[in-house]
Amino acid sequence: MKLIIEKIILLEKLTNVMRAISSRNLIPILNGVKFELKKEGLYLTASDSDLIIQTFIDKKEIKNIKETGVIIIQSKYLLDIIKKLPNGDINIEVIDGLKIIISTENTVFNLNCLSTEDYPQLEFDEIKNPINLESNILKEVIHQTIFAISNQESRPLLTGVNLKLVDNKLYCIATDSYRLAKKTIELDKTYENFDIVIPGKNLNELDKLLSENNNVEIQPFINKIIFKYEDYIFQSNLLSGVYPDTLNFIPKDFNFILTTSLFSFINAIDRAALLTQNKDKNIVKMETKTNEVLISSFASEIGKVEEKLLVDKNTTENIAISFSSKYMLEALKTFEEEDLLILLNTDSQPIILKSIKDETLIQLILPIKTY
Amino acid sequence: MKLIIEKIILLEKLTNVMRAISSRNLIPILNGVKFELKKEGLYLTASDSDLIIQTFIDKKEIKNIKETGVIIIQSKYLLDIIKKLPNGDINIEVIDGLKIIISTENTVFNLNCLSTEDYPQLEFDEIKNPINLESNILKEVIHQTIFAISNQESRPLLTGVNLKLVDNKLYCIATDSYRLAKKTIELDKTYENFDIVIPGKNLNELDKLLSENNNVEIQPFINKIIFKYEDYIFQSNLLSGVYPDTLNFIPKDFNFILTTSLFSFINAIDRAALLTQNKDKNIVKMETKTNEVLISSFASEIGKVEEKLLVDKNTTENIAISFSSKYMLEALKTFEEEDLLILLNTDSQPIILKSIKDETLIQLILPIKTY
Repeated sequence: MKLIIEKIILLEKLTNVMRAISSRNLIPILNGVKFELKKEGLYLTASDSDLIIQTFIDKKEIKNIKETGVIIIQSKYLLDIIKKLPNGDINIEVIDGLKIIISTENTVFNLNCLSTEDYPQLEFDEIKNPINLESNILKEVIHQTIFAISNQESRPLLTGVNLKLVDNKLYCIATDSYRLAKKTIELDKTYENFDIVIPGKNLNELDKLLSENNNVEIQPFINKIIFKYEDYIFQSNLLSGVYPDTLNFIPKDFNFILTTSLFSFINAIDRAALLTQNKDKNIVKMETKTNEVLISSFASEIGKVEEKLLVDKNTTENIAISFSSKYMLEALKTFEEEDLLILLNTDSQPIILKSIKDETLIQLILPIKTY
Repeated sequence: MKLIIEKIILLEKLTNVMRAISSRNLIPILNGVKFELKKEGLYLTASDSDLIIQTFIDKKEIKNIKETGVIIIQSKYLLDIIKKLPNGDINIEVIDGLKIIISTENTVFNLNCLSTEDYPQLEFDEIKNPINLESNILKEVIHQTIFAISNQESRPLLTGVNLKLVDNKLYCIATDSYRLAKKTIELDKTYENFDIVIPGKNLNELDKLLSENNNVEIQPFINKIIFKYEDYIFQSNLLSGVYPDTLNFIPKDFNFILTTSLFSFINAIDRAALLTQNKDKNIVKMETKTNEVLISSFASEIGKVEEKLLVDKNTTENIAISFSSKYMLEALKTFEEEDLLILLNTDSQPIILKSIKDETLIQLILPIKTY
């Protein structure tokens, strides 16, 4: 393998491909990045056991293809090396089959490589009717749900995001069993129904990969999902098991319908949370009065705080309810509207957050009993 | 104590005063900030055992002084609370002597306070002939030396920066015994000689405090030093003991005088350091050829790197010398000139770095024997 390529082109592609490499990976060969130079261009592939990212650099974007070939380069330091080379052309040349020389005018890196024979054969399937979404929409969906997944390996399914297609509606759901985030996307075409769970950590890497607003082609399979975006193929394994049927968790009728300013509510919770920040549950209390809500918290050694907030309320009844300020803030930050609906039944039933205009995003938080 | 003050004014002053509070402090009362409201304005004081910062907010900058008084407020959360309050006026009021209410229109924080009786009596001395320096110059001196102090508590004196005034020259010296940074400032007036060592951690806090370019008045005492800047008084204890007489460590004559581009040298070392970054000593080797220098490093499991760099050399002789790339990079980053002098004698004698025009900054690095 022998080629000349501009640093800036290689750096961008390599950065994105290497998102698949996990620092916790225990299989030595998967610490390498596969460089495969063919007549039509350069394929870069990286993988850990449950994620593969591949990209392609067309021959038009390569200065010179002198000799095709395949090599696995140790990924440790590789990105730093390319990053720190001066802008301009980089020469890449394999010598003796197991060493690679990466050089510019004044710099020569001579790096040991891994055997290509040990690298797993990776192939990508195709489905006929992929779902097409704008990457900005997909990124928004990820941001609106992924924070609610569980980080407890004891319930592995909850560490993923549930993607469920029913009757041309795509539901994205995440829950750690104390809160739930649900976003619905109306699709414009007919697709086959599916119900899968994508590991949260892989979705985080996908989110970083999607930098420009371009089309993403989504191909769900039984045990994996492929996202195609620009020159990238992103394939994630799925979590196996049956995700809880969460759609019924969300109440439809409410005793209390409060309308308040999202911005003021976020700031009030943010301040009320200050005194609870080092505690496990960071509980704050919300109490309705006639046309206002009092938000308060208390830390015996430090002191207490009370916030006043104007609200519209559908009833003359009042309610006091406590919840985790961390969960509440994370849920609130997924909304962008000026006004927010806070929907309640009793102090032991879920708190629902919704925008007034847009029904597609619902955040649910379980209250915490304080007595 | 009862007053109204604009958030932005209090926040800036409080942020700077609280730099004195150490997270490792074990004396409970020193976790508090002293608020002392007098007719002429508000004094804020914070301290750990070896640093005191005090500031003054003039009554002209306070909206309303309703009742003078003194209180010690728990510093934990205090800065966050002020930061997160909305811009505008803040009401501060002591109730029952040991509680403070910090409030705005919709927010009430009610915080426990510490007893003023427990707070140490702090007084600041004055000397007649303080040294005046621009804060930008003082900051530059700190940046050019402080990185070279030791972080080993076993040699406490070396964890400080030596400030030495001899015949109207102010020397600032830092060393961890493997490298040394020395900056000389010519003073325009006559002062009494002194030779003191300031704890590095306190100088770091001073550096952060000096935000605008204004005059700093420096008052050295036997066992402490005071810096006066804007409305701040910054008093640091000194490290006791006799600092090594480092001025004689720096050779005056050299066998090798190399001149090279600072920018290219930094980049070459930076890349050569890549393969050594996870090692203890991160050794790189520098070898002179006719009119160039080869910089190389080697990591058995990864590979090797070689950098070429153009130099002017005063002799036809050649030398190979090894050193820590980390120490070299830190030293190089204190220079701002285009060209740099690298001064050498043998492979076991100190490497000296100097600018061509400016003699006031000298960086010394001991080589590492690799055989």
